Amino acid sequence: MNLPLILITNDDGYASKGINSLLNAVKEIGEILFIAPDSPQSGMGHAITVNNPVRCKKTNFFKGVNAYTCSGTPVDCVKMGIHLLKGRKPDVILSGINHGSNVSTNILYSGTMAAAVEGAMEGIPSVGFSLTDFSENADFSYAEQVVAFITKKILKNGLKKGTCLNVNIPNVLESDIKGIKICKQGNAFWEDSFENRKDPMGKDYYWLTGSFASKETDTETDIHYLNNNYVTVVPCQYDMTCHTSVNELKNWIS
Amino acid sequence: MNLPLILITNDDGYASKGINSLLNAVKEIGEILFIAPDSPQSGMGHAITVNNPVRCKKTNFFKGVNAYTCSGTPVDCVKMGIHLLKGRKPDVILSGINHGSNVSTNILYSGTMAAAVEGAMEGIPSVGFSLTDFSENADFSYAEQVVAFITKKILKNGLKKGTCLNVNIPNVLESDIKGIKICKQGNAFWEDSFENRKDPMGKDYYWLTGSFASKETDTETDIHYLNNNYVTVVPCQYDMTCHTSVNELKNWIS
Repeated sequence: MNLPLILITNDDGYASKGINSLLNAVKEIGEILFIAPDSPQSGMGHAITVNNPVRCKKTNFFKGVNAYTCSGTPVDCVKMGIHLLKGRKPDVILSGINHGSNVSTNILYSGTMAAAVEGAMEGIPSVGFSLTDFSENADFSYAEQVVAFITKKILKNGLKKGTCLNVNIPNVLESDIKGIKICKQGNAFWEDSFENRKDPMGKDYYWLTGSFASKETDTETDIHYLNNNYVTVVPCQYDMTCHTSVNELKNWIS
Repeated sequence: MNLPLILITNDDGYASKGINSLLNAVKEIGEILFIAPDSPQSGMGHAITVNNPVRCKKTNFFKGVNAYTCSGTPVDCVKMGIHLLKGRKPDVILSGINHGSNVSTNILYSGTMAAAVEGAMEGIPSVGFSLTDFSENADFSYAEQVVAFITKKILKNGLKKGTCLNVNIPNVLESDIKGIKICKQGNAFWEDSFENRKDPMGKDYYWLTGSFASKETDTETDIHYLNNNYVTVVPCQYDMTCHTSVNELKNWIS
């Protein structure tokens, strides 16, 4: 029996602890194609590299794993991985495990989730996994169990075509996890700020900073459940049409 | 009477013909804050600059216009523009006019549209404009009329909160334009390819290429109407939840 083919990628880069944990979680479940950025690509959203060439190198960083590093973005990694497969199609694409959560509107900024959305666009069941811990040495041991559980579910049941999953895992003791919640994307936003500094030549530069703030009262959201110690699963699609506005605007424009 | 405040940006860079046409189209309608990338940012999607500082410089490139260049992405430009306004809020954000169309799933890759989506997330009515002509010297004269028409409509009527518009304009004679269609995002995809080349040191590098292909039979889409000489307007939202999947998955996961 052929093992399922699992493409794994991330946005923190090939050497991050999170993608090592992702690999650990699924390496016995399937045949792995590992292709991840050669440098951190956080916040790259759905960017692709069109104005520059992309480098792609085979790496022996992971013993016994078919692994590549790529100079591009997470979405470039998915495209390049599919290119390397020469017509074979992954059974599932997994991205992460991200160091830091990707709930709510962060799906738009997240390279981790963009890789999963790109997978959905390729018609491949895809999942982005994130843990609410930004530290390099975050503990992914419970997250690995979640990855294995959800990957097996998808390999068995598939996913609705054109969708992917945004999975966020709270960084609490396993005994404090209340369960898994299927829910919707929360409606929270970054309150941005730019920190103005001077470089050694006395010229201005800026760092984007900010805090993520939710003002909504709806509790059926990923942000709410994650804050209440649930693993959250949001099914996502790449159709960004606001369908309820289509008819409204027909009057508006005439 | 105060003029409305119009923030304009793009992804082709501040010196492109398209953003000059955008400025031309609206400079008499409102007070302008111009902030655009200092280099081309095509394909940057919703990327933000988090691992590097951002530069922002006032420029006199446009006589009599409050204008800045920014080293970041189109979304960085929107965030920086709002930062520069110190609490004042733009009445509308306009992005483009892009050299090349942004129909269908290209909304995900497009820096032009990401700037508009970011505007929607800020609660500001926003529009991305694109012309189906990639050339540097594209003729934007009819597109300018479309920009002025839609901007005036929005300033008068507003837009549903949390939405923005994806406007694509066919590159045909004005006399061949059939009208404006409000429609949905088409379901077409890039058939990607990577061209493998050798650098002068004999090492491999790759260029992402491909062709955009639609296989759908649904004709109520932007890609269909644009191909039939309509100006297309797709109302877009940033909620990527596939709501129909939420209940289905509740059974799936239990």
